[in-house]
Amino acid sequence: MKEYVIGLDYGTNSCRAVLVEVGSNEELFSEVYPYPSGNQGVLLSAQDPHLARQSPADYLNGMQYIIKSVIEQAQSDLENFEAKQVIALTCATTGSTVIPVDKFNQALGLLEPRNLNAQAWLWKDHTSHNEAAIITAKAKEMRPQMLEPCGGTYSSEWFWAKILRLKNIDPETFGKAYSFVELCDFLPGALAGVKDPKELKRSICAAGHKAIYADEWGGLPDKEFLNALDPELSDLRDRLYDKALESDQVAGHVCESWAKRTGLAEGTVIAVGAFDAHMGAVGAGIKEGALVKIVGTSTCDLMISKSKQAIAGVCGVVEGSVIPGFVGIEAGQSAVGDLFLWLVNHLGTSEYGNNRDEIFKNMTEQAAAMSAGQSGLLSLDWNNGNRCTLVDMQLSGLMLGQTLHSKVHEIYRALIEATAFGALKIIERLEDSGTQVEEIICCGGLAQKNKLMMQIYANVFNRPVRIADSDQTCALGAAIFAAAASKKLAVLELQKQMTTECRREYLPELKEVQTYGQLYEIYSQLYEAFGVEGSSDDLFGVMKRLIKIQQEVNRA
Amino acid sequence: MKEYVIGLDYGTNSCRAVLVEVGSNEELFSEVYPYPSGNQGVLLSAQDPHLARQSPADYLNGMQYIIKSVIEQAQSDLENFEAKQVIALTCATTGSTVIPVDKFNQALGLLEPRNLNAQAWLWKDHTSHNEAAIITAKAKEMRPQMLEPCGGTYSSEWFWAKILRLKNIDPETFGKAYSFVELCDFLPGALAGVKDPKELKRSICAAGHKAIYADEWGGLPDKEFLNALDPELSDLRDRLYDKALESDQVAGHVCESWAKRTGLAEGTVIAVGAFDAHMGAVGAGIKEGALVKIVGTSTCDLMISKSKQAIAGVCGVVEGSVIPGFVGIEAGQSAVGDLFLWLVNHLGTSEYGNNRDEIFKNMTEQAAAMSAGQSGLLSLDWNNGNRCTLVDMQLSGLMLGQTLHSKVHEIYRALIEATAFGALKIIERLEDSGTQVEEIICCGGLAQKNKLMMQIYANVFNRPVRIADSDQTCALGAAIFAAAASKKLAVLELQKQMTTECRREYLPELKEVQTYGQLYEIYSQLYEAFGVEGSSDDLFGVMKRLIKIQQEVNRA
Repeated sequence: MKEYVIGLDYGTNSCRAVLVEVGSNEELFSEVYPYPSGNQGVLLSAQDPHLARQSPADYLNGMQYIIKSVIEQAQSDLENFEAKQVIALTCATTGSTVIPVDKFNQALGLLEPRNLNAQAWLWKDHTSHNEAAIITAKAKEMRPQMLEPCGGTYSSEWFWAKILRLKNIDPETFGKAYSFVELCDFLPGALAGVKDPKELKRSICAAGHKAIYADEWGGLPDKEFLNALDPELSDLRDRLYDKALESDQVAGHVCESWAKRTGLAEGTVIAVGAFDAHMGAVGAGIKEGALVKIVGTSTCDLMISKSKQAIAGVCGVVEGSVIPGFVGIEAGQSAVGDLFLWLVNHLGTSEYGNNRDEIFKNMTEQAAAMSAGQSGLLSLDWNNGNRCTLVDMQLSGLMLGQTLHSKVHEIYRALIEATAFGALKIIERLEDSGTQVEEIICCGGLAQKNKLMMQIYANVFNRPVRIADSDQTCALGAAIFAAAASKKLAVLELQKQMTTECRREYLPELKEVQTYGQLYEIYSQLYEAFGVEGSSDDLFGVMKRLIKIQQEVNRA
Repeated sequence: MKEYVIGLDYGTNSCRAVLVEVGSNEELFSEVYPYPSGNQGVLLSAQDPHLARQSPADYLNGMQYIIKSVIEQAQSDLENFEAKQVIALTCATTGSTVIPVDKFNQALGLLEPRNLNAQAWLWKDHTSHNEAAIITAKAKEMRPQMLEPCGGTYSSEWFWAKILRLKNIDPETFGKAYSFVELCDFLPGALAGVKDPKELKRSICAAGHKAIYADEWGGLPDKEFLNALDPELSDLRDRLYDKALESDQVAGHVCESWAKRTGLAEGTVIAVGAFDAHMGAVGAGIKEGALVKIVGTSTCDLMISKSKQAIAGVCGVVEGSVIPGFVGIEAGQSAVGDLFLWLVNHLGTSEYGNNRDEIFKNMTEQAAAMSAGQSGLLSLDWNNGNRCTLVDMQLSGLMLGQTLHSKVHEIYRALIEATAFGALKIIERLEDSGTQVEEIICCGGLAQKNKLMMQIYANVFNRPVRIADSDQTCALGAAIFAAAASKKLAVLELQKQMTTECRREYLPELKEVQTYGQLYEIYSQLYEAFGVEGSSDDLFGVMKRLIKIQQEVNRA
């Protein structure tokens, strides 16, 4: 009898499930659930652009819907299919997406749907930058070793910053929170019917540098350090966890209630969850020497290595966070697809089409008809802060070179290029720190769909860019881990069976490479000037150099 | 019998006429003619965003239409009106708007309507920046005194740069040009039926620093200097002019042909023309100590003074250019209203309304609901270069502080603020050079219509901003000069009779003034960093200071 696994992928705007056969690289069934709440699933505040929350109800309703759907598809399309043939499942989710829960492991957001602070604090919520700065300062002073895995700076996107923020701005809601759970631990816990937060199995991937968890200092940060941040954090430590697990471990088994809700067999194995990027990297075919970029609203960069070494400005170096037995190296950019969505949603682009897809299609066509340097525009990619290599969420956007004729598709191209330049900064930092990047694999929606973007990436990097074969790498990765946990097989072995070699590749184009070399110099100048304290460059020539490059390109 | 005069105003997108009674401050009739050619009257090139030309046919067709219309209105509405009661007229035009003409004073553009280089080279054509740089360098070397009236740098917007450019890129068309005429001299010449360019009366206002004309060096630049630029320019000098005149002088009399075309009496006095801003300043009530800002697609700043003194970065200090007997001081910003038009035309703003008026109305309402600093955005106003105080047309746009939530009306407000900051730089430069600004009078379409903009100006300047009473100050100024030339009366005396005191005034608001003080510091930092060679400031804190100001404003 054939065996199947289900991988769940919880993104920023929707969640999805894929159902695959164990040991086969064919993805059989899938389903998507766009979160109904807020703005495309994100709860915003008119007062504070840094706020981004999500409704836990969306998570649970979505989980029921997508699992039920793929089971039903299997029942209808596969001969003699039985639910118990689905032997395991787990989830890949955004993170740190932190959910306050009560004593019974119930999300506070379900009880107080109108209280923004009681909801899930989405990864891209940047309200906690003051708290992140305090944690960084205190760690530098008391526990410098704790900053090594995260490149020297703790981020406002992460676990402790968000919890400390809640305590500072809304002690009442903080008081109602018995514990705090990452989304990737919350979902397996819900499926397993865990009623006590202390009994939840926690993911090493989420715990890693984001919750400052490491075996060498005994798990989470010690109480003395947490007490120095806030005595309530020290108390909280007792209500969190001592041990985090890799995702080839079992988190629990599907409970009766969720078996009924989804059609899964009761007792189905639930593997430990992890972050979408980490599981996505496995689904995309990560191996030593390969940089996997999961390109979506933001970008996550992942590598695996046998040696553990801190890398400044690279936000995570954590054992076992990607694949058991390897150190996972994690970097990323806070806004990529989000930059393009901002352009379309906020700057208005109705002349390009009547709906978002049409607008993107036409903007992309017109942008693709241009060469590097031709618009005279240059942009930084910091509209949502800079996650790597500056780790500074209070940086913001910068666009340079506008004339009275600059068009939206030119701005669009400049934003794509900005994300490519930002990505190259990360590659350079990895290689400067001794981690050679021998191969670049991109996956995620934008990598699949946006040929212009991937060609620009190849040209800016001056390296081939390969595209992962699956367009569901995160869910596929989750399915691989579910299989590993259930069958007690090695992840790398299952990965070989269940993924396909990249079939598409973008190669650098010489002329564009040369122009991008010049533009990258200017990007680097601005990057230093606005992003690095104490650097003082003469920027006088910057605008003229852009015009000169533009003229040269136009002449050629 | 009552006497009337007509003032013509040739703007960037349209021309208009007003008919007024001599000695009275009531504007009786007016008519507008939007230029039909190109993009709102401007001929553009897809290859070069710096190119901006106009069709001489539009000028002449428009002149016939608007004069005929106001004469007909007078005939229909005034009892016993006769055309000969219109005793004089003249024109205020954009400039340097340079028209190549043949031996018979015919515009080449009429003969070769498809040849962009044969058309009028509109003031805002910036294709000649290389030639401007060559002229500046050569003058510095050979004739440094010639750069004093224009603040040390010759501009690509001006007479000689445009002519030299034509010679360099299109010698054939240059060869067909017997001479070159400013629009403000071309129109009086056409009305008077002048058939030889050498017989045209030329305006001192246009000649001034823009054609490097001064009595002290014998009119136009000497042949040795022109020869060093290009021998053909030296030859051309003989086909230009020796003497330029103030606008209270007679340029000629309406010829039979144009009398028939317009309904004017043959022999009607035509005063010497001048630039729109200069005549507009007279219509707006310029006097010693008053800075008049003509706020339109670009902004012109004018003052008059009894003492002549070069001011670095202020682009014109010319005797008699505004009012006979005074030194005219001219400064300006290359793009003001054009920045807002760019936003609406190129970034798309359909969510704000269905047409441009509606969009501006709603954007302005939403921008007006914000306080200084609240958007977190800061912009430079250089999308069309910087005319003053940097005199550098190769500077370009810069926008800072974007997040993923920045909205178009916030960008709009940031652009308004940028033009206000740029304007304050000019005020500071004037005062640093000893010309006190005791009063600020704004006129032009934006000053009349855009209350938000004028309130921001008052807050950024921390001074009252008064609004000229007439909404046709340029045409009114031209009418005043026409009366002065015809009646041999002093301009200042006629100005008192024919203009009205400002009735509207914007006063600074304390809280906004304080925030703008902080934002202006940041603007100045960027201004220095990107605009002044050799300045190297630490810009690291810039984005964070903007966020801090934003947070303080939101808290208050």
